[in-house]
Amino acid sequence: MSNIKEELIQEIAPDVARIDQAMRDDLEVTTLGYDPLLMEVLHYGIFNGGKRLRPLLVLLAARLAGSVEKGKTEEELLQLAIAFEYLHGATLYHDDVIDQADLRRGKPSVVKQFGEIAAILGGDFLHSRSMYIIGSVAGSKALDIFCKATNAMVDGEFLQLRNARNYNLSESDYFAAVRGKTALLIAATCEIGAIAGGASDAGRQALTAYGLALGTAFQVVDDLLDYQGDAAITGKAVGNDFKEGKMTLPVILALHNAGEQESVRLLSLLRDTASEGEGFEEAYALIEKYDGFSASRKKAESIVREALSGLDMFTDEDALTLRTVLQTLAEYVLIRKK
Amino acid sequence: MSNIKEELIQEIAPDVARIDQAMRDDLEVTTLGYDPLLMEVLHYGIFNGGKRLRPLLVLLAARLAGSVEKGKTEEELLQLAIAFEYLHGATLYHDDVIDQADLRRGKPSVVKQFGEIAAILGGDFLHSRSMYIIGSVAGSKALDIFCKATNAMVDGEFLQLRNARNYNLSESDYFAAVRGKTALLIAATCEIGAIAGGASDAGRQALTAYGLALGTAFQVVDDLLDYQGDAAITGKAVGNDFKEGKMTLPVILALHNAGEQESVRLLSLLRDTASEGEGFEEAYALIEKYDGFSASRKKAESIVREALSGLDMFTDEDALTLRTVLQTLAEYVLIRKK
Repeated sequence: MSNIKEELIQEIAPDVARIDQAMRDDLEVTTLGYDPLLMEVLHYGIFNGGKRLRPLLVLLAARLAGSVEKGKTEEELLQLAIAFEYLHGATLYHDDVIDQADLRRGKPSVVKQFGEIAAILGGDFLHSRSMYIIGSVAGSKALDIFCKATNAMVDGEFLQLRNARNYNLSESDYFAAVRGKTALLIAATCEIGAIAGGASDAGRQALTAYGLALGTAFQVVDDLLDYQGDAAITGKAVGNDFKEGKMTLPVILALHNAGEQESVRLLSLLRDTASEGEGFEEAYALIEKYDGFSASRKKAESIVREALSGLDMFTDEDALTLRTVLQTLAEYVLIRKK
Repeated sequence: MSNIKEELIQEIAPDVARIDQAMRDDLEVTTLGYDPLLMEVLHYGIFNGGKRLRPLLVLLAARLAGSVEKGKTEEELLQLAIAFEYLHGATLYHDDVIDQADLRRGKPSVVKQFGEIAAILGGDFLHSRSMYIIGSVAGSKALDIFCKATNAMVDGEFLQLRNARNYNLSESDYFAAVRGKTALLIAATCEIGAIAGGASDAGRQALTAYGLALGTAFQVVDDLLDYQGDAAITGKAVGNDFKEGKMTLPVILALHNAGEQESVRLLSLLRDTASEGEGFEEAYALIEKYDGFSASRKKAESIVREALSGLDMFTDEDALTLRTVLQTLAEYVLIRKK
């Protein structure tokens, strides 16, 4: 773990620094003359130790696609990259209002710190800025991809509303929800990066598939961390999904393997959990007993492996280094602790 | 009143019907395959008796600008028009979450009817769709105008947060807040309509100025209705601004005219009002005594009059009818009861 992480950090550090600087510069210009409280709310939510996964993927995909004549300038690529971090920020602002979450990455969430008006409108501001950048830098095709991803996120949440307390949720229902909730947007980072880099159709498809797989794996690991994470490291409470009675992959896969009696027991623990999450340990033990955690992790690994093999098509000189970074990133997503 | 209203309704009825149909068609296509609850939430919030002022202005401004060779097709204009109604809808969804408003146009608000998740995410969906349309139909210059207006709305709310309970608010502070909160977006409908219609620079400026004036007057009248409206007609409670201790134009202008003793009294009524709005009648009487209501109305009238005279530059055959509609619209905004 720590080796992979250190190697990756070293490789991506210059890009992360450029992304952060680009956001500082852009926010400075964009909020010029606006109320200082707005700037404070944006800075607080954006510069809080995020992993910058989405903007990094834009840059990496664009470079791997790598047609200098057809592609955008470095500055334009950076703008597209930060648009995705803004959108990600906007969704976190709004999610924390919806979930009434007090903590985000170990600090008070924006809504907790500044209140609901600031969280909703700060999110709207970031959303608007992100779409402006995509539309003006990458044009209407990119805006279409971007909107389809954000619409799918909204749809995913509505689906989740409908699925809440639906204890017949199948594995494919789960993956459909994950696609909308997380994976399509990460796929969009790679697809828009690929387009901006001047990719061929095949190159664009391979990168989009990689993004979709990485995003799916990311969410599966998120759902694992919700059971197995260490709150001191993840910066958010453990057991939320259980408290809400959510049918995530570890539960669904454990139910596949458990006999009727223990399936009924696991479901009743989920169904009857009060807001304090009584029964978490018993549920955890049942999921573990029936390989729910290990089988979920294996699914995530195999999804990522397949998508990585699709990147073999990029064969020129620089591609090898970039493919290694994307591979390391995928490995990191699988073993991350936060 | 009823004459102006009927005349106007007759004139704009075909456009309103086309706007409504365009939204139904667009929502049908856009939400295809999405969760049916999303469609329900969007329909509920959008087709609730709105005045369609913003989309109408897009169409009217485009026609007045009227260069057929340079302009967009009728279908594209309709798309741009509905984008503004979507954005307006999105802000109402979010505003009602922020204000915890139970009623909107006499019916339960979206947040009251469907809950916070639906209201926040339904608003995000509409916001996203509106920006997509503007960017893809009218391009990056229009997207820039649109974003500046939405950013100003956010900024206006932050300013309002900061101004809340600031009892030294001046008339120019008030108009600056109105500009961001309402007027710039209405100006944007006219400006983007003008661009889409192929306006000259001068034509575009005149139409933008008209929109800014109309939007300003609209908000002044809104603030008057908050004191003088009939809840059965407006569809929302009267006295909200007073309860929140807001310094709106009627109060500011009354304070100009009142002596020290009664100024102190009016301010203390605003300052000390509990959530039930005790003291409303006494405050109302003081504002009326010192011409706060009538002076506000006169300000709104003079703002509109000046902007209307700017439209004299449009002199061709069709322009006269269109200018009459825009004038009637402005008169309606001034005398509207809801």
